Amino acid sequence: MSNRMNGQWRLKSRPVGMVKESDFEYFEDPVAESLSDDDFLVRNLYLAFEPAMRGWLNDVKSYVPPVQIGEIMRASTVGQVIESNNPDFKKGDYVSGMMGWQEFAISNGRLGVMGNTVKIPDGVTPYLALSVLGGTGLTAYFGMLDIGKPKQNDVVVVSGAAGATGSVAGQIARIRGASKVIGIAGGETKCKWLKDELQFDAAIDYKSENVKERLEQECPDGINVFFDNVGGEILDDALLNMAQNGRIVLCGGISSYNEVQLPPGPKNYMQLVIRRCTMQGFIVIDYFDQADKARADLLGWMEGGQLKHAEDIQEGFENTPKTFLRLFEGKNVGKQLLRIADAPIT
Amino acid sequence: MSNRMNGQWRLKSRPVGMVKESDFEYFEDPVAESLSDDDFLVRNLYLAFEPAMRGWLNDVKSYVPPVQIGEIMRASTVGQVIESNNPDFKKGDYVSGMMGWQEFAISNGRLGVMGNTVKIPDGVTPYLALSVLGGTGLTAYFGMLDIGKPKQNDVVVVSGAAGATGSVAGQIARIRGASKVIGIAGGETKCKWLKDELQFDAAIDYKSENVKERLEQECPDGINVFFDNVGGEILDDALLNMAQNGRIVLCGGISSYNEVQLPPGPKNYMQLVIRRCTMQGFIVIDYFDQADKARADLLGWMEGGQLKHAEDIQEGFENTPKTFLRLFEGKNVGKQLLRIADAPIT
Repeated sequence: MSNRMNGQWRLKSRPVGMVKESDFEYFEDPVAESLSDDDFLVRNLYLAFEPAMRGWLNDVKSYVPPVQIGEIMRASTVGQVIESNNPDFKKGDYVSGMMGWQEFAISNGRLGVMGNTVKIPDGVTPYLALSVLGGTGLTAYFGMLDIGKPKQNDVVVVSGAAGATGSVAGQIARIRGASKVIGIAGGETKCKWLKDELQFDAAIDYKSENVKERLEQECPDGINVFFDNVGGEILDDALLNMAQNGRIVLCGGISSYNEVQLPPGPKNYMQLVIRRCTMQGFIVIDYFDQADKARADLLGWMEGGQLKHAEDIQEGFENTPKTFLRLFEGKNVGKQLLRIADAPIT
Repeated sequence: MSNRMNGQWRLKSRPVGMVKESDFEYFEDPVAESLSDDDFLVRNLYLAFEPAMRGWLNDVKSYVPPVQIGEIMRASTVGQVIESNNPDFKKGDYVSGMMGWQEFAISNGRLGVMGNTVKIPDGVTPYLALSVLGGTGLTAYFGMLDIGKPKQNDVVVVSGAAGATGSVAGQIARIRGASKVIGIAGGETKCKWLKDELQFDAAIDYKSENVKERLEQECPDGINVFFDNVGGEILDDALLNMAQNGRIVLCGGISSYNEVQLPPGPKNYMQLVIRRCTMQGFIVIDYFDQADKARADLLGWMEGGQLKHAEDIQEGFENTPKTFLRLFEGKNVGKQLLRIADAPIT
């Protein structure tokens, strides 16, 4: 192996309130001189960012252990195998996995804390393994289909609709026969994209419109499925307009992720009783054993033109923390990615 | 018919905050001189009180229309038919229905806003049709079995556990194989009753104990089913201790019923995501078509000694509003009833 240096972004301090670039620190370590049996060396090409990563920075019990101070920031990445002692992973293969905020990673393909490193099938654009064909697409797929269960002619509302998960979730509802799909997003650009590109029936700009009133107008018979990525007032507004026996899919709650103290919960939660509704949370890692079927469905819908996807691709490893912050600044349309290298082997 | 006067308690003003006796006003009207075809005249013997009645006093859209100012207060009652033009209801029959806070009621046995007036089967103590064999018992039955779905060896926690619904719900969980049933209630008397009489495995006195800590101690592997009648901090404490894939049955939220402004919702609701839990509301009226089977089960369990019930029976029609307030003062153990007359026909 050559005498490569591995640039890394490590957690420097636990963020208090809004995460800051200075909560992370850049380090360089030499890449290991030799690989153990079964190991392979990956050069990361793309880093993926999702709001849930903010939760991994808090020192609390959750569905995964917190990232420790001094540890390389946990993240999904796509890379290319550049050396290998593993017969299943050949030099030149594209792989995806939780390889973190670093330029190089050594893996053996076995299960880590959040899934394993896997080969990206030939013919698939590698970075799609971080967006519509990765955890994000699977989150939308299982959240909408297994928890939301939209039926023919249901009215479906998605918050954070211009985000990577929300945009896919809304389209899946349409594919499964929803009569009306409404997205809630921040700003004219995102709302226009939802309507013009993704064919949502309506988009509500929470920054300039009264969400509660618009939901009443758009859903006179109530919301059958509300897929929530946001929480806060938007969840409260939706609760006031649920249809009888409606389902609320709790996917995320980005509005509270950077709060120092947990904000109040949804004051209208007793509407769940009055309207006989269900509010259910889920974590996509529980569905990994069903991922192949889901990916095949997603790919089929993409090829059939029913499912569109978008990626916001920033450039440069030096911009890693800054790119993470874009999620909380509402800047991304579709999946937030960062390209940190070109494919080295062609 | 004799020249009877019908004492009534009508809604005088919509309560602001805690309901007061003075929100109701006593009236007397003559009982109608003659009955229409199919009508029968009932003398009410027992009035039933439940926390949900507080919600009917607010001028908001809900699962039933609000009680109007000047209207006789809506309530479940048990009475005896004293005159009848209806072949299905004979003089002397005991009946139950939503006959309200009045001494006499005229019914035709047809469906009203919340169910119809029905005959109480021979051999059943009439007032049990207002407690364990009435809407209360059915609420516990369907809430626990259809929403909570306790499985063998589940750990089940009930709030408002010494109330009419909670006490039955907890016992049903035990009958269905729960390994541990824990009740949360206010005060030593109620907690002792839960443990000594109803054989709950543990009781937590929220007035003198730290609920969160006690739940952690009693449920080291988490709560599988939380049957909530209370809301507020108790719901937040339970959310922090749910087991993975746990179910929260939203039956009521008495802690907020007398608040002028809706208090904050459960700030820990995102635990539903982290722990993959479901929080679901229901209204018992949706299950009335399955009531016969449920009543048969409840009666069977009572006769088998597996299901105990308790009624707190106050006396005197003049005490109607005062008795309603007992619910919010935490005074009742088991079902709150008021006896307003003796059975006139034996």
